[in-house]
Amino acid sequence: MTAGAQRLADLRAGGKPALARALTALEAGLDPAGAPDAETAALLDAAVADPAGTVIGLTGPPGVGKSTLTGALLARYRAAGLGVGVIAVDPSSQITGGALLGDRTRIRTSPEDEQAFVRSLAARDRLGGLSDHAVAAALLMRAVYGRTIVETVGIGQSEADIGLVADTLVLCVQPGSGDSLQFMKAGIMELPDIIVVTKADMGAAARRARADVEGALGLFAASGGMDWKVPVVALSASSGEGIDDLIGAIDDHRAWLEQGERLARRREKQALAFLRDCIRTRHGRAGLQRILTEITDSDAAAPFAALSRLVEKLTP
Amino acid sequence: MTAGAQRLADLRAGGKPALARALTALEAGLDPAGAPDAETAALLDAAVADPAGTVIGLTGPPGVGKSTLTGALLARYRAAGLGVGVIAVDPSSQITGGALLGDRTRIRTSPEDEQAFVRSLAARDRLGGLSDHAVAAALLMRAVYGRTIVETVGIGQSEADIGLVADTLVLCVQPGSGDSLQFMKAGIMELPDIIVVTKADMGAAARRARADVEGALGLFAASGGMDWKVPVVALSASSGEGIDDLIGAIDDHRAWLEQGERLARRREKQALAFLRDCIRTRHGRAGLQRILTEITDSDAAAPFAALSRLVEKLTP
Repeated sequence: MTAGAQRLADLRAGGKPALARALTALEAGLDPAGAPDAETAALLDAAVADPAGTVIGLTGPPGVGKSTLTGALLARYRAAGLGVGVIAVDPSSQITGGALLGDRTRIRTSPEDEQAFVRSLAARDRLGGLSDHAVAAALLMRAVYGRTIVETVGIGQSEADIGLVADTLVLCVQPGSGDSLQFMKAGIMELPDIIVVTKADMGAAARRARADVEGALGLFAASGGMDWKVPVVALSASSGEGIDDLIGAIDDHRAWLEQGERLARRREKQALAFLRDCIRTRHGRAGLQRILTEITDSDAAAPFAALSRLVEKLTP
Repeated sequence: MTAGAQRLADLRAGGKPALARALTALEAGLDPAGAPDAETAALLDAAVADPAGTVIGLTGPPGVGKSTLTGALLARYRAAGLGVGVIAVDPSSQITGGALLGDRTRIRTSPEDEQAFVRSLAARDRLGGLSDHAVAAALLMRAVYGRTIVETVGIGQSEADIGLVADTLVLCVQPGSGDSLQFMKAGIMELPDIIVVTKADMGAAARRARADVEGALGLFAASGGMDWKVPVVALSASSGEGIDDLIGAIDDHRAWLEQGERLARRREKQALAFLRDCIRTRHGRAGLQRILTEITDSDAAAPFAALSRLVEKLTP
């Protein structure tokens, strides 16, 4: 067993306290301007190599009801016997010193439940992207739990970043808020795997919102090239209506991903994109240009070792 | 006269053909992974030192009517005898190969009008930020025309980037699209200087949108600390209703900026933020860390010379 695999085995055996310590250690072990330390890189690459489950990315504008929905998904997955890790990324902590973090406590878990773990993390910056640290935390949770949920405020950087780690990307929109759809229609926003219309208890407005979304999606279907048909799920997280539909849609997407090499390919692409992103963050376009040809597809299997190697080359 | 000032004088004397050539030359002269060439840096620093007018940034989600509004502002400023430059930043050109660029022709100018110039530029990336090149183009236009309008698709990167160059930032929202407001309320979106509710001919929905915006702004006023009260202007670019109100609000903001050192300070802060951003883009966090202490306030007066000097130091 490699040192990394041993550390991962210890982490899995150590329960929530071990995971909490590992996540805290990530902050020190992943230098945002330099290389990861050797222990951190070994653990993370072991986690990349041996996932225990899948990652659901939940994104959408503030106030759309993502936290309530995360809580509802967590409860359903726990009831089905799956372990669940949650990463809630909070962009406002950059500005308000954490005012919205209080909000995160809406996601309730029992301290006695060893199979439910919630962690709030600061965003990359005010625009709400995922820090390297948040991506690494999601990879670690993915190696421990059957389901990892990463919740970010979307449109813009975080919507792009969550694509670095989500197996299934769920975009939440609400009745009477057309901006997200406009971004999607204009091709600025990546197409999610599933679209949720929240607050479906709002009646006619929710039905219209759903019809609007389906209309917007029709544009993509018409232009061809998609072999996954993006479902639109209407739900009310407060009444629970529609949650089963969402779980069904996520399961369908997972089943689709598991046909052939889709899931493996998606994760390889993500690992390489994350590696390039980490290098660009640390050493800019000039640094990435300098070592781009040294990144090979095989680095997807151990992106953190590759990051260490490449950052070392770039550091004067 | 310095070489840069001479080149700027030639540019001003050369009319639209000279400006068109200068903007095209920027693409070659501003290496996105390296230093600007000496001629480009000299011209741009001369433009920074000697502005002819102010920059209005127009942002908002796709479909909100920014192009129509830009066209209306251009016509009004021209009628008032002011020269107008427009930069329309097109994020979709990254994906569709320019499908939306056709749309840009909605901004009509007469080829014979020497004092109206419209240029479409690609965005930084799919998320729609301003490239260094677009910021530099705006600085050049600012040195030539009484009004420069920079139009970007907003929320996210471009909304942050337009703050690098706009003297007056105008956010456009439309009735029934609450996402932008939610971003503002959550503190993720920077507060603009003026908010426009477009499609005011939509009646009750427009009035409600305006009331929503004013409610959201009330939160900020209540928290104190702002000495500019953000006005909310309802308008219909198609009927022309409200355009005069917007021009009045922009003039008021300009007058407020020109009290004391506000405009000068804002531009100094922008120049330094742009300089840091250019270095981070080229050499990452590690590069910026290495030379951060070498950036001084005086670099705001000649940011492109500073960029050359610092990038040279960072290039191995």
